[in-house]
Amino acid sequence: MTTPDIIFYTAKVRHGLPVCSAEIAFQEAKADVTRYWIDVANKPEWFAARVNPVGQVPALVYGSPKSDPENPSPGSAKIAESVVLLEFVADLYPDSGLLPKDPVERARVRFFIDAVSTKVFPPFFAFLYRGESPDAFIAAAAEIQELLPPTAQFAVGDHFTIADAALAPFLGRSELYFRNDFGRYGEGAGPPVYEELFRSERFERLQKYFANISSRESFKNSFDTEYLIARAKTRFARH
Amino acid sequence: MTTPDIIFYTAKVRHGLPVCSAEIAFQEAKADVTRYWIDVANKPEWFAARVNPVGQVPALVYGSPKSDPENPSPGSAKIAESVVLLEFVADLYPDSGLLPKDPVERARVRFFIDAVSTKVFPPFFAFLYRGESPDAFIAAAAEIQELLPPTAQFAVGDHFTIADAALAPFLGRSELYFRNDFGRYGEGAGPPVYEELFRSERFERLQKYFANISSRESFKNSFDTEYLIARAKTRFARH
Repeated sequence: MTTPDIIFYTAKVRHGLPVCSAEIAFQEAKADVTRYWIDVANKPEWFAARVNPVGQVPALVYGSPKSDPENPSPGSAKIAESVVLLEFVADLYPDSGLLPKDPVERARVRFFIDAVSTKVFPPFFAFLYRGESPDAFIAAAAEIQELLPPTAQFAVGDHFTIADAALAPFLGRSELYFRNDFGRYGEGAGPPVYEELFRSERFERLQKYFANISSRESFKNSFDTEYLIARAKTRFARH
Repeated sequence: MTTPDIIFYTAKVRHGLPVCSAEIAFQEAKADVTRYWIDVANKPEWFAARVNPVGQVPALVYGSPKSDPENPSPGSAKIAESVVLLEFVADLYPDSGLLPKDPVERARVRFFIDAVSTKVFPPFFAFLYRGESPDAFIAAAAEIQELLPPTAQFAVGDHFTIADAALAPFLGRSELYFRNDFGRYGEGAGPPVYEELFRSERFERLQKYFANISSRESFKNSFDTEYLIARAKTRFARH
């Protein structure tokens, strides 16, 4: 039996590696993946037709025989949505520890991911993209901090899981964007949020946690600071 | 080793069984569960303090030794959030088929659940509770219908999975509420939505699917029509 081929479609960034939870999970699993860069500002037509009808990255194609990424075999599986991809990577690499074996620990991982998706993302985007008050976002970050175990390194213990992969790119972006005042909020509104989350005593546990995940190779390889700054300068230019 | 005890906290309904995806999953798995009814209109104080800080049902306690539901042992695991509970039941009962073994099939199950949670629930509640236009909800139902395999019985094949458990209570309520014009929308706005979703040719596949899930014991045992109607009459009374 040949190992099925994985084609991972992901946003094109300057150095070629995206800031993306699934990318982090693949790296943690040391997965053999064919990456195909999608220019999200200028998506090729075949992408929605043949890979993900919604047109979004990340997405992946999984199957044998090896496919041409621009024309994947109709029999291959097409998989999308970040959370679904994270679970898929964990299922493909059960020995990676990306999901613990114990049902209760698995539930903790999923509860954490659910909290990130439902509680943190909406106010983060509301502040970053619509300039709404950051208070709801800071409150949500405090809730997430409460979920972090007081002494362990990662979200549900001392092993890196998909819970960490889910939060990592988002914490990395928060740190970078708000410190540099990038966002569609009023000028000067970013740095106080950065100070609160990444410097204040109140968020000390979150800061230690961020240091633990951001020092991993999987994070460093996929978090292209220079590219993100260059892109943010255009994207969040104040007129 | 003793089997850990499961205490399942769930909304109190007249006949004692809730309309709830986790309840359906437990029944499909033929799980041995201690049920504890929470009167959601009048929650006991210990519930948030000792079981689920958010105070919501469904929630569960899992562990040994057997606990008093009103005073679960501190060492037992406390688990909440519908989607997390569904995965947990599937993990506890791997032979139930609630989640297939194949990673691609598992991804399909999770994609379906994600679509139900993110695309269908918000417009359903917007229509039902806030009287917004039902168009977005009908469009979302059409998207869900597209995900249903043309010939198989259930969401991802011929075996009942947690994808079906996730959608079942919601489809059941849609059918019952809109047919009876229960909701915080204008008088008479419910039945046309019922006709469209549950009678029109356009939604034939969804209707067949609904017939397949609603004829199962797990659904019939947990969908208390009389109770729901009595409760809806108070809840959605038009003044």
